[in-house]
Amino acid sequence: MSGEPILVLLIEDNSDHAELVMRTIKNHRIPTRIQHLSDGEIALDYLLRRNTFSDPEKSPRPHMVLLDLRLPRVDGLEVLRIVKEDVDLRQIPVVILTTSEAERDVQAAYDNHVNSYLVKPAGFEEFSSMMNDLGTYWLQWNKQARV
Amino acid sequence: MSGEPILVLLIEDNSDHAELVMRTIKNHRIPTRIQHLSDGEIALDYLLRRNTFSDPEKSPRPHMVLLDLRLPRVDGLEVLRIVKEDVDLRQIPVVILTTSEAERDVQAAYDNHVNSYLVKPAGFEEFSSMMNDLGTYWLQWNKQARV
Repeated sequence: MSGEPILVLLIEDNSDHAELVMRTIKNHRIPTRIQHLSDGEIALDYLLRRNTFSDPEKSPRPHMVLLDLRLPRVDGLEVLRIVKEDVDLRQIPVVILTTSEAERDVQAAYDNHVNSYLVKPAGFEEFSSMMNDLGTYWLQWNKQARV
Repeated sequence: MSGEPILVLLIEDNSDHAELVMRTIKNHRIPTRIQHLSDGEIALDYLLRRNTFSDPEKSPRPHMVLLDLRLPRVDGLEVLRIVKEDVDLRQIPVVILTTSEAERDVQAAYDNHVNSYLVKPAGFEEFSSMMNDLGTYWLQWNKQARV
């Protein structure tokens, strides 16, 4: 692992939730930089390098994507579907991070080839513990492809 | 979570590696039962409920699959491809567990919609630590669909 912080793309419209994710991820012993985007359309601009993100220097490939389901403009499942249909973007792990435990949402996410699906716990301690385990699993152990 | 042990399907032909995985997974605080199969053809029989596994009672759906890449008869990438093209089986998380760090293998796995890719560490302590974190992540945090 190099000394460069690992880039995590967080797509989340709820600013309290985003703040909490960023705080817990930043406390992880693995150095991480977070790019936070708050709607599905801008997230697709970033990932597909369109519009304000057409310069690859402004849209470096993230190591992984944390994706909320309910998002303004383009919802999370649609972002997931587009990422997983793209032969390059497909290489990037996408973890859904949502408050929804609805079976319909879970199945739709796996139908669209999500890498993993996490439900945000209500309590801070449990949330923090989950984010720490997520960091260890995806940033330390999981082997990523070069993208 | 119910009191029933969680079923993990381990597809691995190297008996030393299988033994090590089973030992480390069984030590996890989350009660787990492991179904071990040692070639790709028999794994597909199990998952597709063919031949000796045509009775669903003999082939309960696993919570997750740990899949080696190099397997006799049908290799791991082919097993992965078939699982992820099947609309029902696709719901089950598949984690590649291999000694190969080759970029070609990693990319082929993500091309075929693997959920995660882990490289077996050489040392026992590190292997054991990885398997413990794998158990916590996939058995405690990750939300599975009903299959």
